[in-house]
Amino acid sequence: MGKKDVIVPLDVPESARKKYIENYLELTKNTGRVMLFAGDQKMEHLNDDFYGEGIAKDDADPEHLFRIASKAKIGAFATQLGLIARYGMDYRKVPYIVKINSKTHLVKTSQRDPISRALIDVKDVVEFQNNSGLNILGVGYTIYPGSEYEHIMFAEASRIVYEAHKHGLIAIIWSYPRGKAVKNEKDPHLIAGAAGVAACLGADFVKVNYPECKNAAEAFKEAVLAAGRTKVLCAGGPSVDVKAFLQRLYEQIHVSGAAGNATGRNIHQKPLDEAIRMCNAIYAITVENKTVEEALKIYEG
Amino acid sequence: MGKKDVIVPLDVPESARKKYIENYLELTKNTGRVMLFAGDQKMEHLNDDFYGEGIAKDDADPEHLFRIASKAKIGAFATQLGLIARYGMDYRKVPYIVKINSKTHLVKTSQRDPISRALIDVKDVVEFQNNSGLNILGVGYTIYPGSEYEHIMFAEASRIVYEAHKHGLIAIIWSYPRGKAVKNEKDPHLIAGAAGVAACLGADFVKVNYPECKNAAEAFKEAVLAAGRTKVLCAGGPSVDVKAFLQRLYEQIHVSGAAGNATGRNIHQKPLDEAIRMCNAIYAITVENKTVEEALKIYEG
Amino acid sequence: MGKKDVIVPLDVPESARKKYIENYLELTKNTGRVMLFAGDQKMEHLNDDFYGEGIAKDDADPEHLFRIASKAKIGAFATQLGLIARYGMDYRKVPYIVKINSKTHLVKTSQRDPISRALIDVKDVVEFQNNSGLNILGVGYTIYPGSEYEHIMFAEASRIVYEAHKHGLIAIIWSYPRGKAVKNEKDPHLIAGAAGVAACLGADFVKVNYPECKNAAEAFKEAVLAAGRTKVLCAGGPSVDVKAFLQRLYEQIHVSGAAGNATGRNIHQKPLDEAIRMCNAIYAITVENKTVEEALKIYEG
Amino acid sequence: MGKKDVIVPLDVPESARKKYIENYLELTKNTGRVMLFAGDQKMEHLNDDFYGEGIAKDDADPEHLFRIASKAKIGAFATQLGLIARYGMDYRKVPYIVKINSKTHLVKTSQRDPISRALIDVKDVVEFQNNSGLNILGVGYTIYPGSEYEHIMFAEASRIVYEAHKHGLIAIIWSYPRGKAVKNEKDPHLIAGAAGVAACLGADFVKVNYPECKNAAEAFKEAVLAAGRTKVLCAGGPSVDVKAFLQRLYEQIHVSGAAGNATGRNIHQKPLDEAIRMCNAIYAITVENKTVEEALKIYEG
Amino acid sequence: MGKKDVIVPLDVPESARKKYIENYLELTKNTGRVMLFAGDQKMEHLNDDFYGEGIAKDDADPEHLFRIASKAKIGAFATQLGLIARYGMDYRKVPYIVKINSKTHLVKTSQRDPISRALIDVKDVVEFQNNSGLNILGVGYTIYPGSEYEHIMFAEASRIVYEAHKHGLIAIIWSYPRGKAVKNEKDPHLIAGAAGVAACLGADFVKVNYPECKNAAEAFKEAVLAAGRTKVLCAGGPSVDVKAFLQRLYEQIHVSGAAGNATGRNIHQKPLDEAIRMCNAIYAITVENKTVEEALKIYEG
Repeated sequence: MGKKDVIVPLDVPESARKKYIENYLELTKNTGRVMLFAGDQKMEHLNDDFYGEGIAKDDADPEHLFRIASKAKIGAFATQLGLIARYGMDYRKVPYIVKINSKTHLVKTSQRDPISRALIDVKDVVEFQNNSGLNILGVGYTIYPGSEYEHIMFAEASRIVYEAHKHGLIAIIWSYPRGKAVKNEKDPHLIAGAAGVAACLGADFVKVNYPECKNAAEAFKEAVLAAGRTKVLCAGGPSVDVKAFLQRLYEQIHVSGAAGNATGRNIHQKPLDEAIRMCNAIYAITVENKTVEEALKIYEG
Repeated sequence: MGKKDVIVPLDVPESARKKYIENYLELTKNTGRVMLFAGDQKMEHLNDDFYGEGIAKDDADPEHLFRIASKAKIGAFATQLGLIARYGMDYRKVPYIVKINSKTHLVKTSQRDPISRALIDVKDVVEFQNNSGLNILGVGYTIYPGSEYEHIMFAEASRIVYEAHKHGLIAIIWSYPRGKAVKNEKDPHLIAGAAGVAACLGADFVKVNYPECKNAAEAFKEAVLAAGRTKVLCAGGPSVDVKAFLQRLYEQIHVSGAAGNATGRNIHQKPLDEAIRMCNAIYAITVENKTVEEALKIYEG
Repeated sequence: MGKKDVIVPLDVPESARKKYIENYLELTKNTGRVMLFAGDQKMEHLNDDFYGEGIAKDDADPEHLFRIASKAKIGAFATQLGLIARYGMDYRKVPYIVKINSKTHLVKTSQRDPISRALIDVKDVVEFQNNSGLNILGVGYTIYPGSEYEHIMFAEASRIVYEAHKHGLIAIIWSYPRGKAVKNEKDPHLIAGAAGVAACLGADFVKVNYPECKNAAEAFKEAVLAAGRTKVLCAGGPSVDVKAFLQRLYEQIHVSGAAGNATGRNIHQKPLDEAIRMCNAIYAITVENKTVEEALKIYEG
Repeated sequence: MGKKDVIVPLDVPESARKKYIENYLELTKNTGRVMLFAGDQKMEHLNDDFYGEGIAKDDADPEHLFRIASKAKIGAFATQLGLIARYGMDYRKVPYIVKINSKTHLVKTSQRDPISRALIDVKDVVEFQNNSGLNILGVGYTIYPGSEYEHIMFAEASRIVYEAHKHGLIAIIWSYPRGKAVKNEKDPHLIAGAAGVAACLGADFVKVNYPECKNAAEAFKEAVLAAGRTKVLCAGGPSVDVKAFLQRLYEQIHVSGAAGNATGRNIHQKPLDEAIRMCNAIYAITVENKTVEEALKIYEG
Repeated sequence: MGKKDVIVPLDVPESARKKYIENYLELTKNTGRVMLFAGDQKMEHLNDDFYGEGIAKDDADPEHLFRIASKAKIGAFATQLGLIARYGMDYRKVPYIVKINSKTHLVKTSQRDPISRALIDVKDVVEFQNNSGLNILGVGYTIYPGSEYEHIMFAEASRIVYEAHKHGLIAIIWSYPRGKAVKNEKDPHLIAGAAGVAACLGADFVKVNYPECKNAAEAFKEAVLAAGRTKVLCAGGPSVDVKAFLQRLYEQIHVSGAAGNATGRNIHQKPLDEAIRMCNAIYAITVENKTVEEALKIYEG
């Protein structure tokens, strides 16, 4: 994929086109596919994802995320600006996605519908980028369609996409239907709807959950179609068996037509070396067009 | 209808009058009538309107909307800025209405009254228009009179109309009475009230539902009267039999005095060719003053 | 009443004093009394006040309001900016009061306390006035003391009065105690309180409901006293017998000490000619110091 | 007390120190003590405090407040800007405190916790002062610690104190614990807490209720201590026997260590002459260091 | 610890690096450890912490806090700007942390989840610092993860950290999980999560509660790890036996790896001399690397 193959959305002004194209190509390693290392869980899931049974000791320290991001093959590492500002000076070459909003998982939907607000504006991200010289490719924002507060998040997301594009940054929307009105978050038709919402909001990429149903890979095509030119990334979800994970990833890309994945726990809950190999295996399938078997060999070192 | 026949509202400043008149005439094809192709449902109804039984496969891809808009006779195509920014470079000649706000249909009125917030400001639309060179004729905004949140939407709508007019853009309000306080959304007297609200908010056009009652065409006159110089467009609603649709459209215009329609599902749920013919049939009645029979022939190709 | 008799509030800056005095004198026709033709009901009451049994056919069209306002004797015509912008070019000589906020009557107090937000800022009204050249004398705003949302409306009202005065515009507050905490909206003591609130907010005139009680004219003196230099206008209320209406109006002014009235339905629900005569009759009592009998003759033509 | 005795808070910038000191000395008549004539009840209590049994007829007219303020000895007269703007031209020498926020008493705590929002910004007060040339010494703001909305009022109060000090104005906080969480508003320990909150918010003076308990004067010392350099004023409360009132006032100052009082109803519910004498009696104890007997003689004329 | 050992977060721009490093070194006395004298309880706990059984009389007066802060060894004294502005002129050498937000403890979680809003902006703190010449090292802000309002506080906290860093100020977050969704505030795993949230928000230091569980010092390591480069301070909590307090403090630092403490009540509820010795004892362990026995001797004088 070359510079001419990037479809630059029209809210990217002339002055930012070059930067947008560079960011897009770097994020996708000139393939249009994205291996996103997702590391926003320290707010989203508190310490549950980083400490406890079945989680490597390495993961207790937030620097683990940066060590992985700097040593493994990834498209970008997504986390909050606060962490990036604190560790970035030692991990200058990592390509970053600044996750703009985050909430904790303490208040459950049965108590109140989810709401997550922007922690920082895009203009701050741009200023931060200029001041720090870090390699920031774009921004991320989570919406919860079906929440009683969706209107607040839709408005913020739309604003953030628009401002990101004005500065040539890539905009990724995490789109998770959730709230008392949502019966089944993993329904493929609903996931397709959530992908379409992100497209309407102008996202370059939308991260959605993978359906739980029969023939999920087949059913997931609906979401890829619904998102149109907005490319679909699959959330990695909780840690599972590596081979199953890679197999599912392969199908997401080669059966459903997804543009990649956004994986966190399946990577960082492993010790550093294994986490790096896991990244590289995911990257192999996503970006390097390898088979599941080839990827598994990479993982197994 | 010529330039002198357009009644320019006084909140259009001198400097924007020419543009307003041009936009008005282009939107109405010099007839004062509007054939609006409404395509904001990917947020409003998620993927329910685009995928499933009775819906053409073409409709699964958002580009279907742009293909129709570019090949059929329409007054304008209304959709969210995010989609326009993503596809507009390939559909530069389409006349666009930017739909400013949208919500999903997940939260029902029984759970909470409807609220839909602006995703973008008019000044962003103007900036986008300047940067992109697209043919944007105006903006759209939905209000829900009778919602516990109507005050929020009334304030946003009023602001958007005022700002749109300052820039010579046409302002269309979707006005749907809805909420726990609303017993019958399709009551002609209530619809007339909803049309009047849009007139007070300064809309150039108001899109309302068509009444469900005896002698609907007759009863609908009340709304046309109540809106005064704000012209009334009828929502197309869910897909119905084509002949019945065209017959009803004809009556809306020639019996009730409506200025046109805003149709989505009855168009885009059809395969591309049929969708184009459907547009052209609607356009024939609305803009070209054709009979139902003539329009039906166009539809049937 | 001459220029020197107008007590200019001190939040009118020196530069705007002349305009304030001119507006005050024009609104009161040099008498200190106001005959306000109130036409904001298309939002407040939807189409209930404009269409149906006992309402003249003329009233179905919003232009009816402008026709009356332009042909009858009035102090000013109060309605939303959207309507003024749409019809004002044909009714340039009408003195206007821009009604800044409005809500519908769909959500009842038993469901939720009333809230009505500003649709437009005073600075927009001033800009509109400059761009349009219309004869705008002032602005109006409704507060609901006793509503759970009174703090929001008090803050907006205070801001609007302050900004209006900065530009030499007259500020009128509609003050209606309403909400679950309000047992009897027509209690004269409560109405006096509502008038006092408007005085504290800086209003030039306060429109209140007329009490429902024995010796209402006598009881209403409390409100006139409580408002002090803020002058009291009586809401006209729903249509009643003309003679009774004029008699009540006379007592409001000559017994209670009110400065006039703000009448809508009792005027516009009549056919044009009768509506004009009704205006003129009200004007005769309010501004021309005529008797009820003289006014009645004017009404009867 | 001289200029050097005024402890100027450090948020008063150098450029405003002189004005702050002048305002402080004028408000306290060079004694550090304050006799504040509180007249914000037309919003707070509607007309209940101004009309009815046991209330002098004079009080029905808001000008009564200004007449008292101009003819009696007072430190300052506190009321809303709207009233000051309407009457100030005839009462130019009155020292004013602009009461920034006010609510009505209609919504009771059992229905919803109290909230009162700013009606105007400090910058508007400063502009108003410059335009009008009135003698405005400072601003007042009410907080309700313990209300579910305390965070909104704390933030506004803090901002208002900070802005007032930037312009050399004195800042007085009315601090009344109230809300479903507050069991006894008149508990001396809670009142002390409320005084401390105002100190943390930067108030120069805090107006609190006087405790209802045994040895109230003794118990009230806790509040005076808790407020530290923020000086404590006692709310006058509802009308009571004059001698008892003056006796209590004397004890507040000479036993508890309060810096004065803020009295409304005990003054303005009396006829003009008696109200003036009442002011003077309060002033005698507060500012002129007179005994109760001496003050009583002043009251009795 | 020297200038080169301070890891300056990348949201500190080049122009503010020097100031940030100076503030960091002064706050930590060149050791990286912090002895924070926390004095924001006059809002947080009203007068409960300052007056009553078991509390020294000295504590009734807010100046007690400043006397301690000026005479004892501390890293910084944290309190609200209002108090600092009122006493700072007499305590110019005290290093201050401005506590940006505060609420009262009146509304309990069973009634409504906690919310605390900023009383002042960072830009005001910077202006205040410039105007006053006081020695302000940084700012503090409290978040309540798990509250239904966490999104509001997270957004404010993130903004405040970012703005503080722009001006070279140190940012400390008080992070207390609280709300109906929080079952056990003192759970070590939850505390670790709360520390991680502060890290994601960019805090330089996070103040958390010390766990209540078996082997608390051991369990608390999780929080220190989770916070990463954001250093952990332990809240002092209610007054306890001095020896036990110092022993626990020693373990927090030498077993758990905490960077210090933020202690209020255990200091200021003592008479001035004892409070100073208590500060010095805490400082000895925290900053001077003394043993519990040595510190105890300091306390005992």
